[in-house]
Amino acid sequence: MSRPLLASPPRVISLGLDLFARALETLDVSVVHLAWTPPAGGDARLADLLARLDARADTIERANAEALARLTGGEPFLVDCRPAWEALELPERTVLHAGPPIAWERMCEPMQAAVLCAARYEGWAANDDAARRLVETGAVRLEPCHHWRTVGPMAGVVTRSMPVFVVENRARGNRAHATINEGLGKVLRYGANDETVVARLRWLATEAGPLLGAALRRTGGIDLRALMAQALRMGDEMHQRNLAASALFVRALMPHAAHVGGRHHALARLGEFLSGHDQFFLNLAMAAGKSMADPVAGVASSTLITALSRNGTEFGVRVSALGDRWFTAPVEMPVGLYLPGFGPADANPDMGDSAIVETIGLGGGAMAASPAVARFLGAGGVSEALAATAEMREICVGEHPIFRVPGLDERGVPVGIDVRRVVETSITPLINTGIAGRKAGTGQVGAGVARAPLGCFTAALEALVASA
Amino acid sequence: MSRPLLASPPRVISLGLDLFARALETLDVSVVHLAWTPPAGGDARLADLLARLDARADTIERANAEALARLTGGEPFLVDCRPAWEALELPERTVLHAGPPIAWERMCEPMQAAVLCAARYEGWAANDDAARRLVETGAVRLEPCHHWRTVGPMAGVVTRSMPVFVVENRARGNRAHATINEGLGKVLRYGANDETVVARLRWLATEAGPLLGAALRRTGGIDLRALMAQALRMGDEMHQRNLAASALFVRALMPHAAHVGGRHHALARLGEFLSGHDQFFLNLAMAAGKSMADPVAGVASSTLITALSRNGTEFGVRVSALGDRWFTAPVEMPVGLYLPGFGPADANPDMGDSAIVETIGLGGGAMAASPAVARFLGAGGVSEALAATAEMREICVGEHPIFRVPGLDERGVPVGIDVRRVVETSITPLINTGIAGRKAGTGQVGAGVARAPLGCFTAALEALVASA
Repeated sequence: MSRPLLASPPRVISLGLDLFARALETLDVSVVHLAWTPPAGGDARLADLLARLDARADTIERANAEALARLTGGEPFLVDCRPAWEALELPERTVLHAGPPIAWERMCEPMQAAVLCAARYEGWAANDDAARRLVETGAVRLEPCHHWRTVGPMAGVVTRSMPVFVVENRARGNRAHATINEGLGKVLRYGANDETVVARLRWLATEAGPLLGAALRRTGGIDLRALMAQALRMGDEMHQRNLAASALFVRALMPHAAHVGGRHHALARLGEFLSGHDQFFLNLAMAAGKSMADPVAGVASSTLITALSRNGTEFGVRVSALGDRWFTAPVEMPVGLYLPGFGPADANPDMGDSAIVETIGLGGGAMAASPAVARFLGAGGVSEALAATAEMREICVGEHPIFRVPGLDERGVPVGIDVRRVVETSITPLINTGIAGRKAGTGQVGAGVARAPLGCFTAALEALVASA
Repeated sequence: MSRPLLASPPRVISLGLDLFARALETLDVSVVHLAWTPPAGGDARLADLLARLDARADTIERANAEALARLTGGEPFLVDCRPAWEALELPERTVLHAGPPIAWERMCEPMQAAVLCAARYEGWAANDDAARRLVETGAVRLEPCHHWRTVGPMAGVVTRSMPVFVVENRARGNRAHATINEGLGKVLRYGANDETVVARLRWLATEAGPLLGAALRRTGGIDLRALMAQALRMGDEMHQRNLAASALFVRALMPHAAHVGGRHHALARLGEFLSGHDQFFLNLAMAAGKSMADPVAGVASSTLITALSRNGTEFGVRVSALGDRWFTAPVEMPVGLYLPGFGPADANPDMGDSAIVETIGLGGGAMAASPAVARFLGAGGVSEALAATAEMREICVGEHPIFRVPGLDERGVPVGIDVRRVVETSITPLINTGIAGRKAGTGQVGAGVARAPLGCFTAALEALVASA
């Protein structure tokens, strides 16, 4: 009897490319495949930068623990709604926009359209041509929302007479702000700019905003962290889906709004606006996120992300240890589903400050809470939703102690995006997002997902090494 | 070389008791275990009854398909809230109660307490002793809610001045009713009976009910099926958990309530009541369920359940082919979690018409939608929630086309409980429930789950065979 080469069938562990594993599987050979890739995609320069940070890993881990505690320990309370000139002391002829700083001529069309429309709405210019001249001559200044303790979805345009929600992080004493979400379709933030847009902005400023403000002041502050934790248990990931949070907000607001009353039928009009508006809460989640993320800036040696943001041209990130600096790269195109009559050719690149919700662990990283949203990823459903959250876990340093998911048996969402892990794994944050039409005046054309570009993170990594 | 007994390792299929399978597993023998049990638990008499129905299985399947179509095709719209004397023409000195018919002296304490309290509230008696004499002498009549197109949670007490919600099943033209849910703790339906209970009932009748009615009439009807389908996607199973549905209801109601206004601060008081009331929607889910289940009665040869209900002493079921007849058995004790200061010794047996929600596929059978509620089953969590829904699938003939669960990748909840399957498998419906204190005046002591007793179903099976 000839002796076999092996005493028992071979048991194989395969690394890297799965070609070998698949070949063995076709031969019925037992194989365990590890989807290993070399760190930083095999880029020797990046691997060297990572190694240099490794040399002070203990310091960084301690700093990141402190940064994570600040991030997850935020206590955002919604306390008011006031015009931006009051809440932010926003001056005349200043337009805030989403994303990192950008010059007028590099802005995408929908953001330019929103800027010009806001100038008309404020009465600074009678028409778009006049408004454009004001901007081009510097008579109207452009600044990022993020520089004004504010965040804005999509174009993110804020001017002084617009009411903004005021969120107070009671754990740290800082405040953050966001406008009132206008609804879907033809709205300013998606670059729509006709008279219906301006009329809605006027109603928000003259009736809805003051009524919301009076009601909110009467509440003594709505605990947004508790409300968001509850909504996460109800299928919201709070970027693409805000139905539960919006309904819970209305329920909490209603008695106070009824008490303060307002003009005849003002409450009924506000109720009508709210009752049809499933994304109303998005701006509140964003302001809460900004209020939680801002105090994480400036923890020496921390490699955690404190802002993810897009201006439609560039994607920008901020890193705790590096304070207010932006690290940018060209923004990517979202992929997703389109409204009837629109397709990918109509889409603007990724835009908005709304990725602040991904910064605090919601949105893309919380997809496990929201299988219905996972359909933007492809087949959708539970397994794709769980996979998205599992992927974000790869680049995060912790789990949220408050934002927990029943579908994960009460496990917290991943939180605390670490620049090092992003570069090491080449996995960049997954952002759930709306999609604006690329032509001025179009408005929303769809919704989907986008990736933060790796370039932001490699630039931040270089700066972290240089600053050490 | 000796020849082995078997050419390859044994591969075993084991049936019934799992002792053999477990023994083989300890020997590393590959075994597939089928948890087979003999039909009807090996009861020869029941097996014979099932076999007799098998002889006309085709007729029954056709009848059940028709019954299921009626059950799942119901279109419940909430159209009004009016006093029971208007909506039901409920006469003076009539008290409706939960469950199948029951004589006064066989009622449990909390139901008796609620009956007497209602008599005081209506002004029929100055105190409990006087009220008791009216009941004992027949001057106050007791009738089941179910006989009055109405359902009531727990004690289920309804009298003429109490406002009831009016739900219209627009697919069939019938109506069903339920009182306004009073909230948790010391409330009439849990057998509490002090002055705070009566005061709340008066506020509901004089202020909240009329305001709700005026607002609902202005809506033109709220589509409860759509709202419930949405809430099921938001973690409600709509028996133990109604948070999403309650918040969605407030959001839909608010503009209409604001339009009709009401007395000074009436809207604010209603808003305060609603904003703290996570179980508000339960009674609406029940009235919707009753409106959907009632038209299923009287489909010749159908073995589907059209009502599950408990009066705290007996559990009653109705079967489609047998119309209005009740089949009863002694009710079981719920198991669950208790409020601070209470334990199982304080619990009343299972009670209430609320199991109408299980009749239409919600509650226990929809646990997969609501992992948070599964903690009442033991360890809780996703796997226990999925297992509960999978178990109910064993006794149901279909899946709901509208009530779908994201966590089941959009599969519908099991619906259409078949008496035959219940007897064959000995699996009885799982009911999510509140737990009343067994002593009069206590109120709610906990929440948990209960099982419908098998005896109702074997009695119904006998009657089905006898009626053939």
